[in-house]
Amino acid sequence: MKVKVAKEAGYCYGVERALKLAQEAVGKLPEPICTLGPIIHNPQVVDWLKGKGIVSVDSLNQIDKGTIIIRSHGVDPKVKIEAKKKGLEIIDATCPFVKKAQHCARKLIEEGYNLVIVGERNHPEVIGIFAYAGGKAVVVENVKDIKQLSNFKKVGIVVQTTQPIENLKKVINALIPKTEEIKIFNTICDATVKRQIAARNLAQDADLMLVVGGKNSANTSRLTQICAEVNPKTYHIETASEIKKEWFKGVNFVGITAGASTPNWIIDNVAKVVKKL
Amino acid sequence: MKVKVAKEAGYCYGVERALKLAQEAVGKLPEPICTLGPIIHNPQVVDWLKGKGIVSVDSLNQIDKGTIIIRSHGVDPKVKIEAKKKGLEIIDATCPFVKKAQHCARKLIEEGYNLVIVGERNHPEVIGIFAYAGGKAVVVENVKDIKQLSNFKKVGIVVQTTQPIENLKKVINALIPKTEEIKIFNTICDATVKRQIAARNLAQDADLMLVVGGKNSANTSRLTQICAEVNPKTYHIETASEIKKEWFKGVNFVGITAGASTPNWIIDNVAKVVKKL
Repeated sequence: MKVKVAKEAGYCYGVERALKLAQEAVGKLPEPICTLGPIIHNPQVVDWLKGKGIVSVDSLNQIDKGTIIIRSHGVDPKVKIEAKKKGLEIIDATCPFVKKAQHCARKLIEEGYNLVIVGERNHPEVIGIFAYAGGKAVVVENVKDIKQLSNFKKVGIVVQTTQPIENLKKVINALIPKTEEIKIFNTICDATVKRQIAARNLAQDADLMLVVGGKNSANTSRLTQICAEVNPKTYHIETASEIKKEWFKGVNFVGITAGASTPNWIIDNVAKVVKKL
Repeated sequence: MKVKVAKEAGYCYGVERALKLAQEAVGKLPEPICTLGPIIHNPQVVDWLKGKGIVSVDSLNQIDKGTIIIRSHGVDPKVKIEAKKKGLEIIDATCPFVKKAQHCARKLIEEGYNLVIVGERNHPEVIGIFAYAGGKAVVVENVKDIKQLSNFKKVGIVVQTTQPIENLKKVINALIPKTEEIKIFNTICDATVKRQIAARNLAQDADLMLVVGGKNSANTSRLTQICAEVNPKTYHIETASEIKKEWFKGVNFVGITAGASTPNWIIDNVAKVVKKL
């Protein structure tokens, strides 16, 4: 069986940085060391960190001392203020690209724009950006949401870093006739786009495509969707244990890609298992 | 023969205003009264104004006294300065919507954007906007021109008032991956869009479509193009004299539209001639 991993796959810069910051804290910063929500959307990595003494809490109410790690998705700025008040050490592992989106959102509000955030309403990154804008924003998931909006004089746009560029284009196209002025900060992260292009290209060539990553990871799900568009034999798995022999009947070439929160050791293991089939 | 004129057709606000200003000047302001270039792109109207003593000159070199009318398309701001120096009376009949595009262009330059003007490179309106931006702009006619551009950090966009919105959308779509920040002033005039929608709707219903207006009028040519897309029996004429009987074989319903520089008396005459067929 021929197996190929997409040219760009797995950990992105923001995730790698967040995990590095978390590991560096162990033994140096006050315990307990907690992440506010799972540090990345990958259950295997979260378990591995637990082994190092870094646990995930759902809210600041669950921690009264020690260190709190703000994960790469970012948070409502009020959370940092509250953590300071509680006397906690703070590691802000917000991805620099997410931070940029947060600042762009605030800037657009200050400049008097009606803010539109293009992204998934319930994603922590979008919730954080929304909070940075003081809650004065409309979250738009897709072009259908635009139809319900009234006309604006000035619209400002920021984008969840993991959004597909095609969705942004469609939203902008629908907004153009509804407004006189649009200011767009294209805050989509390069890594996402590169992973998506590499995944699509590989899925076109491969007989079967495996997308490796957390079932709760938005960017992994999107990779699955993109691959499935060009290759109906696309499977989203978290680990090699989910692989089923019967998928591979008549398959000679398997492509593998992985979400931004999937560690290399999981990807490598999937490749190894497939090669042995 | 059933004949219907599109709901929105003929003179737009800017053209009507320019012609009114020109007529009001006769007998009040110093003679000769000249327009810098034909006041509108309609030879019949230009001839009619000549009868009132308003003539068209190609350049300020051709006039040393009297009154100069700046037509609705606008001009390079240097022209106004030169006319003042020569001691000429100036009637600035620049369409208010074109003026807005000129000011938006200048504003974007001042704010540090790389300016893109979406429009026809050689159209006087675009030449005027380009001059207002101090010549620091790239004129983009369509999406093909974008491919040759390098990446920009900040792009500002203004649009020739008579551009089809679909062209603007395509240009923006192509620019999004090439830049981090885009600020768009949608300076397309409502009148143009309304005329285009009304023309397309009527062309869909009609057996044959007549588009009335100057052969040198960009917006009339665009109406022709839009109608021809949905109705292959589309003809662009300047006056009723161009109508040919053989076009109307098997035709029961004729639609008529007209460019923004076409006077009502020419439209009415076309309708009258067609009804008699």
